Amino acid sequence: MLSCIVPGEFQLIQQFFQREQAEQPAAGVVLGIGDDCALLQIPEGKQLAVSVDTLVSGVHFPEGAEPALIAERALRTNLSDLAAMGAEPLWFTLALTLPQAEEQWLREFSRGLFACAKRYGIALIGGDTTAGPLSVSIQVMGAVTPGQALRRDGANLGDFILVTHSVGDGAAALASLQGRVSFSGDDHAYLHERFYRPEPRLQASARIRPFASAALDISDGLVADLQHICTASDLGAVIDVEALPLSSALVAYPDRTQAYEWALSGGDDYELCFTVAPENMPDIAMLIAQGQLQASVIGEMVAGNRVICEYEGQPFSLAKQGYEHF
Amino acid sequence: MLSCIVPGEFQLIQQFFQREQAEQPAAGVVLGIGDDCALLQIPEGKQLAVSVDTLVSGVHFPEGAEPALIAERALRTNLSDLAAMGAEPLWFTLALTLPQAEEQWLREFSRGLFACAKRYGIALIGGDTTAGPLSVSIQVMGAVTPGQALRRDGANLGDFILVTHSVGDGAAALASLQGRVSFSGDDHAYLHERFYRPEPRLQASARIRPFASAALDISDGLVADLQHICTASDLGAVIDVEALPLSSALVAYPDRTQAYEWALSGGDDYELCFTVAPENMPDIAMLIAQGQLQASVIGEMVAGNRVICEYEGQPFSLAKQGYEHF
Repeated sequence: MLSCIVPGEFQLIQQFFQREQAEQPAAGVVLGIGDDCALLQIPEGKQLAVSVDTLVSGVHFPEGAEPALIAERALRTNLSDLAAMGAEPLWFTLALTLPQAEEQWLREFSRGLFACAKRYGIALIGGDTTAGPLSVSIQVMGAVTPGQALRRDGANLGDFILVTHSVGDGAAALASLQGRVSFSGDDHAYLHERFYRPEPRLQASARIRPFASAALDISDGLVADLQHICTASDLGAVIDVEALPLSSALVAYPDRTQAYEWALSGGDDYELCFTVAPENMPDIAMLIAQGQLQASVIGEMVAGNRVICEYEGQPFSLAKQGYEHF
Repeated sequence: MLSCIVPGEFQLIQQFFQREQAEQPAAGVVLGIGDDCALLQIPEGKQLAVSVDTLVSGVHFPEGAEPALIAERALRTNLSDLAAMGAEPLWFTLALTLPQAEEQWLREFSRGLFACAKRYGIALIGGDTTAGPLSVSIQVMGAVTPGQALRRDGANLGDFILVTHSVGDGAAALASLQGRVSFSGDDHAYLHERFYRPEPRLQASARIRPFASAALDISDGLVADLQHICTASDLGAVIDVEALPLSSALVAYPDRTQAYEWALSGGDDYELCFTVAPENMPDIAMLIAQGQLQASVIGEMVAGNRVICEYEGQPFSLAKQGYEHF
């Protein structure tokens, strides 16, 4: 791999990434950081799931954000893609571009990164550090059993549509962080946590895998993402707006229409949206009833090719918001 | 994966990456671009080699560089890491950050990228496009037979040290592109090509694999990179400066000491540096003699822990140059 910013900074990078990685030996890593490539042994009989996401300072997080939180958000949003695919986390690489190699920043960033990696059982196996405007590109690799991945193209007519936990928090958090709206102290803290430390729904993913016909994670907004399932499955979808699960922060928010807008078109939620055939719904319902899965039915796959939102049986028109940079 | 810059630009990205990728179906790709993850089937009995490199505008290539050349350089430098590891190219992902999704720029970039990918038999399987200062992060994946990878830690006392083709061109090209030195028209064109379209030494890698004890590619400069072999193998190295293979452009350059400096500490050459035990040298020599390998013996692994350069038997002191940004 290309090496670091300037020769003198090599030891700093090594100190914060290579050494810590060496202290956390991981399954399947034949050779980790420090050679031209990492060498990896895929678990027997498994396929590899791969995804890459980049977070740019001033675009995906505010300039001056805490380095540990940047690391957490970068890794968690990538883990969310593995969850959306029904894959088990294995390894990741880190391409870090930063203006200068500042020891304190690197210490905090690597602390956040390795704590998060340990929590979700994923190992750093390589990377590249370059000089330039701050951005973090992470590529995650996971294992799936052939034929058992949660794809986007498997939804069928009449399938129920569900989402995990609550939707709309990502957009509300963004609005709150940008000072466009204000929340009470507790709700602000909750939304801040949801933004920087979104929970990759790996456990939910494993539980729904035998029963879901299609799945993805909500990053661009529920309607935009569900549209991907519609397009891939050659179907339409109807969402019952009143059925959208909102967090207590959003329930308490005085403008309910705005809360629904956040839930439908806001993005950054990293919840799973998935479809389930009617014959599999009893199994999903049992998981929910037993507290093993937190998810809500929000609609149904129908004929057509578009996502339609309904409120009390009437069309709910979305004042679709553009992407808001920091 | 996270999606693109703004919703309206999705189709542009899709047009230039997803469609072209679909037209080049590749071995082992169960599911390519368009879902949360790509799904990949590793060839039977093989291990996965993974490397990631980022190229930042204004740092690794001049601002305003041709998009097709940026794509070529990004992919080729990554392929060089697979060559350095003795791995066969399989797949790659692309994390592209760019200020705006300009159709002409994307067309040229993707043209350069796919032409290069086709040439080396590597398939784009996923990516992420984000808004921000221009940078290109590519992660390559390749296949190696267990135990046959070319690592850095396998050199032994008395091993010969070789480099493929010529060294110093990368640094000379950088100096020329930056206007610090001037070359004749032909030599300038040659160096420009060497800079933007470095040849990943995949064929050489496959040929030396049975005989080399250690290998890497020269990205930071011969001395700095050979030092990695020394450190990993717990040895020192002596380079005979007069034995360094120089291109005709560098041979014609009036300041030979400067040419040696470029060769020793310049970087950006993407040639292989490898070590060979004396008992394997006849096989390597036969490959060279038969024109199947272009490589030169430049030194020997010795006791110690440092790289020493000698010129006519005397120490050759390096006026080590710092990393030069554009």
